[in-house]
Amino acid sequence: MHTTSKTDVRSLMHTGRMLYDGVPYFDLQRAGEQVVHLDQWFDFWAAAGERYERMGEEALAAGARLSGGEWLWQASLSFHYAQFMWFHDPARRERGQRRKVELYNRAAPNLWPPAERIEIDVEGSTIPGFLRMPPGRRPEKGWPCVLLLGGLESTKEESYQFENLCLRRGIATFAFDGPGQGEVFFQLKLQPQFERYTSAVIDRLEKQDELDSNRLGVLGRSLGGFYALRSGAGDDRLRAVVAWAFFHDMDDFEEMPEHTQEGFLYVAGGSRDQLLEALDLSDIAADLRAPTLLLNGRNDPIFPPRQMERTIGALTNAALEVVIEPDGDHCCHNMGNIVRPRMADWLARQLGAQEVRR
Amino acid sequence: MHTTSKTDVRSLMHTGRMLYDGVPYFDLQRAGEQVVHLDQWFDFWAAAGERYERMGEEALAAGARLSGGEWLWQASLSFHYAQFMWFHDPARRERGQRRKVELYNRAAPNLWPPAERIEIDVEGSTIPGFLRMPPGRRPEKGWPCVLLLGGLESTKEESYQFENLCLRRGIATFAFDGPGQGEVFFQLKLQPQFERYTSAVIDRLEKQDELDSNRLGVLGRSLGGFYALRSGAGDDRLRAVVAWAFFHDMDDFEEMPEHTQEGFLYVAGGSRDQLLEALDLSDIAADLRAPTLLLNGRNDPIFPPRQMERTIGALTNAALEVVIEPDGDHCCHNMGNIVRPRMADWLARQLGAQEVRR
Repeated sequence: MHTTSKTDVRSLMHTGRMLYDGVPYFDLQRAGEQVVHLDQWFDFWAAAGERYERMGEEALAAGARLSGGEWLWQASLSFHYAQFMWFHDPARRERGQRRKVELYNRAAPNLWPPAERIEIDVEGSTIPGFLRMPPGRRPEKGWPCVLLLGGLESTKEESYQFENLCLRRGIATFAFDGPGQGEVFFQLKLQPQFERYTSAVIDRLEKQDELDSNRLGVLGRSLGGFYALRSGAGDDRLRAVVAWAFFHDMDDFEEMPEHTQEGFLYVAGGSRDQLLEALDLSDIAADLRAPTLLLNGRNDPIFPPRQMERTIGALTNAALEVVIEPDGDHCCHNMGNIVRPRMADWLARQLGAQEVRR
Repeated sequence: MHTTSKTDVRSLMHTGRMLYDGVPYFDLQRAGEQVVHLDQWFDFWAAAGERYERMGEEALAAGARLSGGEWLWQASLSFHYAQFMWFHDPARRERGQRRKVELYNRAAPNLWPPAERIEIDVEGSTIPGFLRMPPGRRPEKGWPCVLLLGGLESTKEESYQFENLCLRRGIATFAFDGPGQGEVFFQLKLQPQFERYTSAVIDRLEKQDELDSNRLGVLGRSLGGFYALRSGAGDDRLRAVVAWAFFHDMDDFEEMPEHTQEGFLYVAGGSRDQLLEALDLSDIAADLRAPTLLLNGRNDPIFPPRQMERTIGALTNAALEVVIEPDGDHCCHNMGNIVRPRMADWLARQLGAQEVRR
C-alpha cells in the first residue's frame, strides 16, 4: 500500500464528477466493492479501460461506429481516472496519460458529432485540441464556439459530455490542453500566463471558415476557471467567460486537500515558490470586460468562500453573474445535472447560438 | 409507516435502472440520505419533480427549449419513480401517474428530436404513444422504427434515454402504453393477448409516410420482454424482436419479490387466477419467426434461469441470439452502459439502419 500520502481510496472516488463526465455507474459500483487499497485503484481502472477498448474495437469491426467511438472514449476516460490523482508514481501516471490520449485519438473520428484533432504551435510547444461542430445546418456567418479548459488534472478528453450539451445548443467546441495539462505536461509545465496560449488558439481558430470568430467564448473548470478568467482578461476576442469553480490566489494553498497540493506541485514541475507566485489573478482581473459567469458550490473544500469573494471583488469591470449553490461541492459536481445545462444555456444566450431543432 | 409490506426503502432504490433511465445521481444521493421510512419515498420524489417542473418552466420562458424539455422530462421521471411501486396506495399512485403523463406531454415537443403524441383507438380503448424521428436526412423509403414496450410498472415515459440511443443510430421510435400500463391502466387492466394491441399500433404506423413499414421491430423490457415475444409471434410485420429480460409463464410467481407480486396483481385488476393463466407464452411461442435477441442478467431475482430456459426452449422457429450476462441483475440494469447500446446496435443491424453522421 502506498504510504507517502494519508489519502485513502474514498478520496479518489469523485462520484459526481466521474458519473457526469461519463464514467459508468457499473464501474463505480464495482470499484467501491473491489478497490480496497489505494494501490489497486490504478489497475482496476486500467483493466476497465482495456475491456472498453476491446468492446470498441469489436463494435468498429462490426460497423457500429457510434458504439465503437463511445466505447473507445469510455476506455480513454477509464485510463484518465486511473491516473488522475496518481502524482506519487510518475511512471504509471505517464502510462495512463499516454493511453488516455491514444484511445481518445482513435475514438475522435467515430464520435457524433466527430472530433477533429488540431495541433497548434505556440512558442516552440505544441498545443493539441479537439474541434467539434454542432449537427445540422451551419449558420450563414458560422458557428459560435466555446474554448474548453481543463484544470489541475482534468484534460481535453474529459469534456466530451459537456461538449455534447454545447453542440446540441448550436455551439461548436474546442477543448485543448495548455501548459501543465494532459499530454502537454510532458513538454511544458504550468506557466504563469495561461492566456498567451489561449490567444494563440484563438489565432488558429479564426482561420476555421465554419466558425464565427465574432462569437467566441471560454469556459474553464476548477484551476481552469482561473485560466478562463485570465484568458478573458487577456484577450477581448472572448465575448463570454465561464469560471466553473474559481479562486483568486494561492494564499489558502496550505488548507487544500493533500492530494490537491501534491497535484499543483506536480504540474508546476516541483517549484513551490514559483507555483504560489504564478497563480494570482491580481495583475489582470480588472482587464476582464466580457460578460462572465462565476459558478461554484458553497461546500467546495478546495476553493473556500473567501477565495471566491476575492475574485468577485477583483473583477471590477466585467458584468458578472454569480451562482454559489448552497448544496454544491467542488464545481457542483454532485449536482451536474443542474449546473451543466445551465452553463451551456448561459453560453448559448451570450453567444447568440440557436438550438438544433432538426 | 406502511405496514402491509415487508419491503424497506432499499428495495425501492433501483439505482442502476433509475440512473440509466435518467434519474440524476444528485437525487439518488439525497434520497439515500433523506428517505428513511418507506412512506417518505413518494413525497421525496414528488418534491423533486416539482422542482424540475419549475426549472423547466423557467427555461422555456427564457427560450431554452432543450433544457426546458429535458427538465420537464426529469420532472415526469421523478413522479414516475415516486409511484412506480406504490401499489398499496392507489390514490397516490394515480396522482403520480397523472402528473407523470401531463409533464411528459409538455416536455414532448421541446425534446430533441421532439416526441409527437399519437392516440390509437383499439377495441374501444385509447392507446397513447410517442413517435420520434432520427435527426438528419430521411432515407428514401423512410426510417426503420422500433416499438418500445414497458413492463409491469415501466411506461412509455421511461424510455427517453433508450430512444436517444436508437435515434442516433437512425431508428425511429414509438413507445406506447398497452393494457395495464401507465395511463392506460385507468381504462383497461392487463389483457391476455397484448399482441392484439401491438398489431393495432402497427396498422396505425403504416400510415406514417416518414416510416418504412417494411423495417419495423419491437423491444420490450421485463414483463414487456414477454409482450415483445408475443407481439413478434402474433404479427410477422415485426422483423426483429428484443426481449430485454423475459420469462415463460407464472409458475414461479410465488418466488418473486413481494412488491413484484403486488404489482402483477394490481395491474391485472386483482384477479390472481386470471393473471397466472394470462401470462403464458406456450400458445404462441412457436409462431415467432423473426430474428430475436434475448437478453438478461444471470442474477435476475425476478425471472429465474429456469424461466428463461423454458422460453429459449419454446422459441423453436426463431433465429435466436441469447445474452445472459453473468454479472447482470434484472434487465442488466446495473450494466446499462454495456447492454443498452448493444441492443440498439443489434436493432440497427437487423433493420438495416444507417447511423446519423451529420
